[in-house]
Formats: sequence, structure tokens, C-alpha cells
Amino acid sequence: MRYVLTIAYDGTEFCGWQVQNNGRSVQAEIENAVFAAFKVRARVTASGRTDSGVHAEGQVAHVDLPLEMPGDRVADALNPHLPASISVLSSKVAREGFDANRSAKRKTYCYKMYFSRRRNPLLDRFFYRAEGEKNVEKMREAASLFVGEHDFSAYCASGSQVKTTVRKIYSFSVTEEENAVRLEICGNGFLYNMVRTLAGTVLGYSQGKINAEKIIRSLKSGDRSLVGKTLPPQGLVLKSVEYE
Amino acid sequence: MRYVLTIAYDGTEFCGWQVQNNGRSVQAEIENAVFAAFKVRARVTASGRTDSGVHAEGQVAHVDLPLEMPGDRVADALNPHLPASISVLSSKVAREGFDANRSAKRKTYCYKMYFSRRRNPLLDRFFYRAEGEKNVEKMREAASLFVGEHDFSAYCASGSQVKTTVRKIYSFSVTEEENAVRLEICGNGFLYNMVRTLAGTVLGYSQGKINAEKIIRSLKSGDRSLVGKTLPPQGLVLKSVEYE
Repeated sequence: MRYVLTIAYDGTEFCGWQVQNNGRSVQAEIENAVFAAFKVRARVTASGRTDSGVHAEGQVAHVDLPLEMPGDRVADALNPHLPASISVLSSKVAREGFDANRSAKRKTYCYKMYFSRRRNPLLDRFFYRAEGEKNVEKMREAASLFVGEHDFSAYCASGSQVKTTVRKIYSFSVTEEENAVRLEICGNGFLYNMVRTLAGTVLGYSQGKINAEKIIRSLKSGDRSLVGKTLPPQGLVLKSVEYE
Repeated sequence: MRYVLTIAYDGTEFCGWQVQNNGRSVQAEIENAVFAAFKVRARVTASGRTDSGVHAEGQVAHVDLPLEMPGDRVADALNPHLPASISVLSSKVAREGFDANRSAKRKTYCYKMYFSRRRNPLLDRFFYRAEGEKNVEKMREAASLFVGEHDFSAYCASGSQVKTTVRKIYSFSVTEEENAVRLEICGNGFLYNMVRTLAGTVLGYSQGKINAEKIIRSLKSGDRSLVGKTLPPQGLVLKSVEYE
């Protein structure tokens, strides 16, 4: 029986979703919880990896268990075996043919930053601290340039192997929250480091370091020298994954 | 020369503000930073203590240093010597006669909780997880009963020694934020554990466990058996301290 899990995690202390030789991964923690709860060694497959230090509010994963039970019970069985930094928010029986990775249609990520010359320890776990001026209108201008279907190869960290670097962005919003800003981006998929590099480019544009012509050129040429810096992982959260 | 510091800290790993024999205190960390920065052993006096695990967004403290410098420079000198969980947000030269503790006129605390049957690791550091129904209107009803001058002895943990248990509450608001609720209370002072017990009582009332008559009686009689439970520290933040 295949079950679908919706999972939240504080990524601070993990090497990312995927099992790695060095470092604790979220995937390994959940697979260990599956074993502790059900005495079964089973692979837990997510909608996609998240990198080291990246958080999730609504990661989706599936797991095949040789057991039949009400879908909601899986979450309750796993949670006592998970560390405080990971929680299975909900679980259900998967519909026929469902695959958490291959069936994913849209993902929404959020990148949060605050503007301050000095550190704020109440924000640093989930926000990037930006220096300089906050200019939300300018950030919105930059974000709007990315909406639509584009080749994002200039926004993809080198070393990643993908069939195509073309992705479709459905929306890219910028919301002001007191001294902070929340970028929310929804697309049909994201390349390695893409959201963090988009966030850095939106920030760079808002601070006058990058102009619109450079951004447009980066989407045509794939030239990485035209884009902003890749912002650190702690500001990034995988909010939700949508399926058809 | 007396300097005033505005300080933010994530209280998770501290035994509270005050220097204690057992455990790391915020005060000791700042006093150590003063020594590292200025080679001076000096007491750092806050507006009041915060308990173990309680956070601050705007704690105010003063320190006397045998040095004259532009007030803003003190923060920049201290921050490199503080752990990531503490930051001096601003500093200035104190006005004549200022005392961070004795001159404090009003304090504002915030208590945050979310409602969920299952843990959310992205909230657990700064929110209390409540179970059951969220009823914001009921919470507002209960909060309004505390506004004004009352004897809060029923809301004070035993063992504290104070001259009077009468305090004045200027405002007590309840704000809804998605699945969470933020209580914000402003008063001329708070007894030991008072905000956390008020938060527990407001929650208890909203869930039908305590009625208005009991709350009113608790303020007249000082009877602790009439009030709600003291909620845990991680939901509590000292937001700001006001001086005349």
C-alpha cells in the first residue's frame, strides 16, 4: 500500500532532504522512523530534494508499506520516532499511480529576508539578513520579469544534470511584513539553487546593482555573470507541492 | 558614562536573563562581551529578568563604562563578542538619572500559540502548540477582563517576593495570524510567570474550561485554583520597554 506524507522540517541541522554519506538527512530520519514504527525498511521518496539548511512547510513524499491501515494513522505512528525538527503533518492512502516526485505539477517556495544593519536572533533561523535599503516596489518589478516560461540555465548552480533548464513560473509575489520581505514563487519546477539565485537577483535589482536589461539578457543567454548572488539557505522554505 | 542597550535574544538555550550558578544566562554573556570589547568588568542591568526559555525583541539594559564614546558605537563593539542568539540592536548614551530597571514605565509582552494536533517544527521555537479549537472571539472576551488595575496575586508563581501584587494592564489584544494567535499585553509591570498564566487563562476560557465569573473572582480573591495553567516559556517574547 502506498501512503502520501506531508512533512514539515526545520532544515537548520540537516544536510538536506537526501540521504548522504556525510551528515544527517531528513530522508534518513524518516526512513528510520518508518523502521522504528513498522519494522520495515522502505524508501521514502519526496517531490524533490531540498538543499542543506533549507526548510519545508509542506514537502510531500510517498512510501510503500506492506501494511494496510487508515491513511491518517501513518503520521501518528511516525511522529513519536522523529526528532523535534521534523513532523509528519498529515498522511493518507495514495491514489492509483501516484508518485510524489513524478506526479508533482507545481511547487511553491518562499524566501524571506529582513533588512537590518544588525543581526536579529529571533529572525536569523528563518530569514536572510540583507543590508542596505528595502525597496519593495523595485523587488516587485524584478520579480515580474521572471513570470512565464524561460530558460533558467543562468540561475542553475553548475554541476547539476537535468534534461532541460526551461521552467515555467506561474507567479512571483513580493509581500512586505514589518521590516521583512517575503518572496513567494510558484512554478512547474525549479533547478538546483534557482530560487535562492532568483531571490539574490531580485534583491540586487532593488538595490540598483542589476538592471532589467541584464535580467532579460540572462534569460536569453544563460550567462551567469549577469545574475545576482545565490542567497543562503536559511531564508528558503518549500511551502507546498501541488498534484493534478 | 552610562549607556543604554536595546537587546534581542533567542532565549531557548539560556537559563534566563539573570546570572545563575547553573546554566548560561543572557546577562553573563553580555557582561563577558563588555569585558572582551572594553577590558572592563561591569554589571549590565536590565529592565527586569526574563525567565528560562523566554525571548526578547526589545529588552533594555544599562551599563556604566569608564569610557566616553559615541553611544551607537557600544552596540558595534559588543556584537562581535556575542553568540548568534544575542544581539545588541541599538545603543546610546543614557540621559541623566536613567536606570533601565527603576525608570521603566511600561512593558509589552507577546505570547504566541498555534493550534494543531501535530507539531510544526517551523513554529515550535517561538510558539506554544495548543490543542483543540481556536476561538479568537472568546479569547478577546477573556483578555478584556484583565484590563485595568487589579491584584494579580492569583497569577503570580509562588516564591516570588514583591512589595505589591497590584499591576495595571493598559491593553491586552488578541490577533489572529493564519492558524496562530498572538496575545499582546502592555502593563506597568508583571509578576513572576504572570503573562504565561494570563495566556493559559485566556486559552482555558476560550475552550470553556474557565468562565468569566471565575476570572473575576480570581482577581478579587487571589485564589490560584481559579486560573488557567502557566503556559511554557517558548511562546513568550518581551517586545518593548517604555520609559517616561
